[in-house]
Amino acid sequence: MLEQDEYIEEAAQNPRELIEVDDELMEDIEDLVRSKSDFLILNILQDLYPADIAHIMNRLETKEAEYVFKLIPNEVASEVLLDLDDAHREYLLRTMPQPKLTELVGEMDSDDAADILGELSDEKAEVVLETMNVEDSSDVQELLRYDENTAGGIMAKEIAVVNQKDTIKQAIRAVRKLAKEHKNIYHVYVVDDVGVLVGAVSLQELLLYAPNKRMHKLMSTDVISVTTDVDQEEVAQVFKKYDIVSLPVTDKAHKLLGRITVDDIVDVLEEEHEEDVAHLVGSDAEEMEKRSPAKIAMLRLPWVLITLLLEFVAGLVVHHYDKTLSQVILLASFMPVISAISGNTGLQSAAMIVRGLATGHIDINRWWIPVWRQLQTTLIIGSVCGSVIGAIGGLWHGGLLFGLVVGISMFISINISGVVGTSTPMISKRLGFDPAITAGPFETAFQDVVGITIFLTFATLLLRWL
Amino acid sequence: MLEQDEYIEEAAQNPRELIEVDDELMEDIEDLVRSKSDFLILNILQDLYPADIAHIMNRLETKEAEYVFKLIPNEVASEVLLDLDDAHREYLLRTMPQPKLTELVGEMDSDDAADILGELSDEKAEVVLETMNVEDSSDVQELLRYDENTAGGIMAKEIAVVNQKDTIKQAIRAVRKLAKEHKNIYHVYVVDDVGVLVGAVSLQELLLYAPNKRMHKLMSTDVISVTTDVDQEEVAQVFKKYDIVSLPVTDKAHKLLGRITVDDIVDVLEEEHEEDVAHLVGSDAEEMEKRSPAKIAMLRLPWVLITLLLEFVAGLVVHHYDKTLSQVILLASFMPVISAISGNTGLQSAAMIVRGLATGHIDINRWWIPVWRQLQTTLIIGSVCGSVIGAIGGLWHGGLLFGLVVGISMFISINISGVVGTSTPMISKRLGFDPAITAGPFETAFQDVVGITIFLTFATLLLRWL
Repeated sequence: MLEQDEYIEEAAQNPRELIEVDDELMEDIEDLVRSKSDFLILNILQDLYPADIAHIMNRLETKEAEYVFKLIPNEVASEVLLDLDDAHREYLLRTMPQPKLTELVGEMDSDDAADILGELSDEKAEVVLETMNVEDSSDVQELLRYDENTAGGIMAKEIAVVNQKDTIKQAIRAVRKLAKEHKNIYHVYVVDDVGVLVGAVSLQELLLYAPNKRMHKLMSTDVISVTTDVDQEEVAQVFKKYDIVSLPVTDKAHKLLGRITVDDIVDVLEEEHEEDVAHLVGSDAEEMEKRSPAKIAMLRLPWVLITLLLEFVAGLVVHHYDKTLSQVILLASFMPVISAISGNTGLQSAAMIVRGLATGHIDINRWWIPVWRQLQTTLIIGSVCGSVIGAIGGLWHGGLLFGLVVGISMFISINISGVVGTSTPMISKRLGFDPAITAGPFETAFQDVVGITIFLTFATLLLRWL
Repeated sequence: MLEQDEYIEEAAQNPRELIEVDDELMEDIEDLVRSKSDFLILNILQDLYPADIAHIMNRLETKEAEYVFKLIPNEVASEVLLDLDDAHREYLLRTMPQPKLTELVGEMDSDDAADILGELSDEKAEVVLETMNVEDSSDVQELLRYDENTAGGIMAKEIAVVNQKDTIKQAIRAVRKLAKEHKNIYHVYVVDDVGVLVGAVSLQELLLYAPNKRMHKLMSTDVISVTTDVDQEEVAQVFKKYDIVSLPVTDKAHKLLGRITVDDIVDVLEEEHEEDVAHLVGSDAEEMEKRSPAKIAMLRLPWVLITLLLEFVAGLVVHHYDKTLSQVILLASFMPVISAISGNTGLQSAAMIVRGLATGHIDINRWWIPVWRQLQTTLIIGSVCGSVIGAIGGLWHGGLLFGLVVGISMFISINISGVVGTSTPMISKRLGFDPAITAGPFETAFQDVVGITIFLTFATLLLRWL
């Protein structure tokens, strides 16, 4: 008994803290790698979670990271591999001996295994599939057939499933069979004799009833599910809306095929968000990953060049009115203000709509609601900004009319920006494009052209009195 | 036996589908509300999840929504209330009789109850706290003491907790006690005699062992936890990094106080995303919520007006060089291009850094890494854009020197944008500001000023040869 109490004492005194990966720790590890002190490195790593080991490896040179990786036991290494950044994982996957690769992939849940195989060359992936456990291999091959951005592409095959005539005892047995190798079991799914999903029972419900109770008596029949072809963004919305942690995936005939868990959805949400931000600022979502500057420049260049060409249209408009400009050169001073503010207003409206469409708050069939709301908003913003800039313009130029020209131009172009910024993403969506794409620099460039055209046309018309 | 088989048949034939809330359904419901057909309304609603009922109510006028809400039984109504949009919830909370409010809040988990009480007036919240069950009331009062954006503010008090000397049987009893009223139980937490968190056991592990096994023998002692004062954004990062569904929250002395579940974290992630996007386009995150256009205009105006004033600096720069401009008016045509591209490059860099800081991919103590990477990128982008615009400029103006002026100006201002866009968010963060705030229109306005200044200064210096 003394021994047990001591054990308890010790556990209580050493609650494990999250270890911060700081410069000091990194230096220690680099020194240990250089001196090849395997035992000491392992000693540090065994106190860490796989995600933290990956974090450390990401900060090492690929060669050093490879050295550390070789020391880690397989069941940890397979998790570390999934948490590494692209550059480090690519390197390891390329240099790792084939048998080791097969072992690591074999340790993974089927969805993760499919992701890793997707990153390998076709020949290499084939060898892994041939050398791994037959059952795992067929699961992974099934998953590889689905588009990676759909429910089928992110689901895993590891599910606890029983027939509706089975008892709780049998359901518990199904959980036990899985539980030794897999985490993330939250539900037992219930199917009929032909494999159609008819219900689900959460583990906590499983604990509530007597072991001989039959599943169909206690299962919820109103279980939410998706088919394999549903887009991952929609899947994420289902998780968010219904506050669930696990979602069964079926084929069109409602046959149960797999399940998606919330930890994967958290990643999907991040991915979709990065895509939106990237489009808003005119860039590629992949850039958010760690890539070489040359690669990033190549990803960005198309966007920048398109913006450049669109802005040239604004340049042509200016050129068209250069007589007006050279007569009242102060107009040039107001060009940056007008184009920046209308660009900004358009981008704001577009961003709201992109978010609204993604979260389902905006119903595209009732497009007039956001447009009308936006117009009410820009009428107020336009009046205030128009008055401010009009007053400044009038005082600066020393004439009421000049103030009116800049003020009214500002007012009109802010309102147009609002309406165009609101409707463009909805039209894109209706036409089947990603609404986030039109939101970014295109919107800004378009508003620049509109703003400057209105301003200079208006000024030219009233030129004789300016 | 026939009866049971029939039951199974029926369940299998009617797997519940997600009901789409379309215009037709909405019209039906509006008609039924008008004709006060309570029974038929309830008949539709009872097939729906609370989130879908909330969705329908959000599309009704507040008066009609109130009518529907009164029909719903309390245990569903409490969930619906949490899913409503701000405008509808505000209305219901204002008009609902006090006893009903107390009952609904009593049905909620402590974290949700605290959220709702936070939206009530102080007097109203006090009455609810006084009239509800004493135990619930003290839980909620404890939660109300924490800042709402911290782990303490989002945690719930409903946890299954046992002493480390207890057996699995006792742990299952603890789960059963909670499970009837609360969903989202994934772990049993283990504490020592003074309440210090020493371990955790997932429900699936609980199913693996014999009922008389003691908790300290099977618990994981390396359980990840946070203290109440940790910011919710950091909490979300912990969930993401370690792929967990439930996180215990302790005080500084490691005493277990509550737990956060992943469904709340999904909301936190959304919130933080909306904040980032809103700042990027120069707006307020609250705008994403359904608010009146007047309110939205008021939220946006400060940002727009600040941008307007900053852009005036660009206007002053133009004014300073108006002699140059009036001599070579074609320069005015290139102003929009140069300012848009440098504004865009700066915003891209800033957006990457804001994301990197939020996800922890960028370590502010090693600031030179992203700055150097960004500079390598912009050297390439700048060269390409500079060459393109230089060639166009040279051809258009019919002189090599003009092309050189616009090309080199473009090159320099793109590189400055990249460095400034990268360092500004990191400096803001270091100074304790939200890095997302400086990313938006400020960045664009700043780059406008820089771009135009470089361009016109350069052109003025070379004016005699243009």
